[in-house]
Amino acid sequence: MENRGLVIVHTGDGKGKTTAALGMAIRAWGNHLRVLILQFIKGSWKYGELESIKALASINDQIEIRQGGLGFSQRGSGAEEEHRCAAAELLQTAMDELRSDAWDMIILDEFNYAYSFGFISLDELEQLLSVRPEKTHLIFTGRNAAQELIDRADLVTEMRLIKHPFQQGIKAQKGIEF
Amino acid sequence: MENRGLVIVHTGDGKGKTTAALGMAIRAWGNHLRVLILQFIKGSWKYGELESIKALASINDQIEIRQGGLGFSQRGSGAEEEHRCAAAELLQTAMDELRSDAWDMIILDEFNYAYSFGFISLDELEQLLSVRPEKTHLIFTGRNAAQELIDRADLVTEMRLIKHPFQQGIKAQKGIEF
Repeated sequence: MENRGLVIVHTGDGKGKTTAALGMAIRAWGNHLRVLILQFIKGSWKYGELESIKALASINDQIEIRQGGLGFSQRGSGAEEEHRCAAAELLQTAMDELRSDAWDMIILDEFNYAYSFGFISLDELEQLLSVRPEKTHLIFTGRNAAQELIDRADLVTEMRLIKHPFQQGIKAQKGIEF
Repeated sequence: MENRGLVIVHTGDGKGKTTAALGMAIRAWGNHLRVLILQFIKGSWKYGELESIKALASINDQIEIRQGGLGFSQRGSGAEEEHRCAAAELLQTAMDELRSDAWDMIILDEFNYAYSFGFISLDELEQLLSVRPEKTHLIFTGRNAAQELIDRADLVTEMRLIKHPFQQGIKAQKGIEF
């Protein structure tokens, strides 16, 4: 079989969905692939990984991160329309970037969040998948991946929470949680 | 509560165990933590991530990867003793490095493999955990994490395979599988 891009989904209630996407981005960069990360939740990528990506991008510009969605904190009355617009804009960016064929991997971080809140429709998801160049990897992260996305994906992993330090009263740790 | 290091386990039959550990290493490096990766299976880290780590290490030397274990391919008659020795040596390295307090995060990649094959004992695991400085994060990856490790961990995530491209006859893809 030919080389082909994969549609990949990281979902589940456990940790590691975005972290494994970050790992894939890093591996891909090391393989000289061009990697674009689009964030559907503002601030979901923190100082540590942003610094590392900046460091790699300073070596060559084959990795880039763009923030388009809104933060969890902005949910609530009146904010829904803003969320919908932010998601629609970032979706448009994703489609434009896929069509441009400028990337070998595009990570749609927390896409599942935007989709499960109804900010993105099945039609739009199908359009997104249809404009994907054959060799481009497309990675969706976030809890509650829709069955219709899973049905259309090549590789789906569920990150399951078995044990979490917060359950044991341990606070968030720098370099781990943020 | 004080800052403290966590004992973290990535297990399960899905993808993303090592990849999420790589993501954690990258995030930690960006947070100016010192990260050591010890590989219990030779060759489990491939060209892409090795290049990226090399790139980051060229910026500063707070990240390092060392290979100590043997490869899957070397299993079979006569090889078991070699595996046992390789695992014991790497375990000793891990203990020495923990005692040196030179690292903020140590990743024991595919440790669970060595442990589940009996190359490392429960006594040795307990000794390893007991020499960990309080602020050092220790990350164990690999399928079939032992219950006794899970019992002693702060954060445990199971990566579950939901759908895999090999099941659909799609071959391994550069930048994804290797």
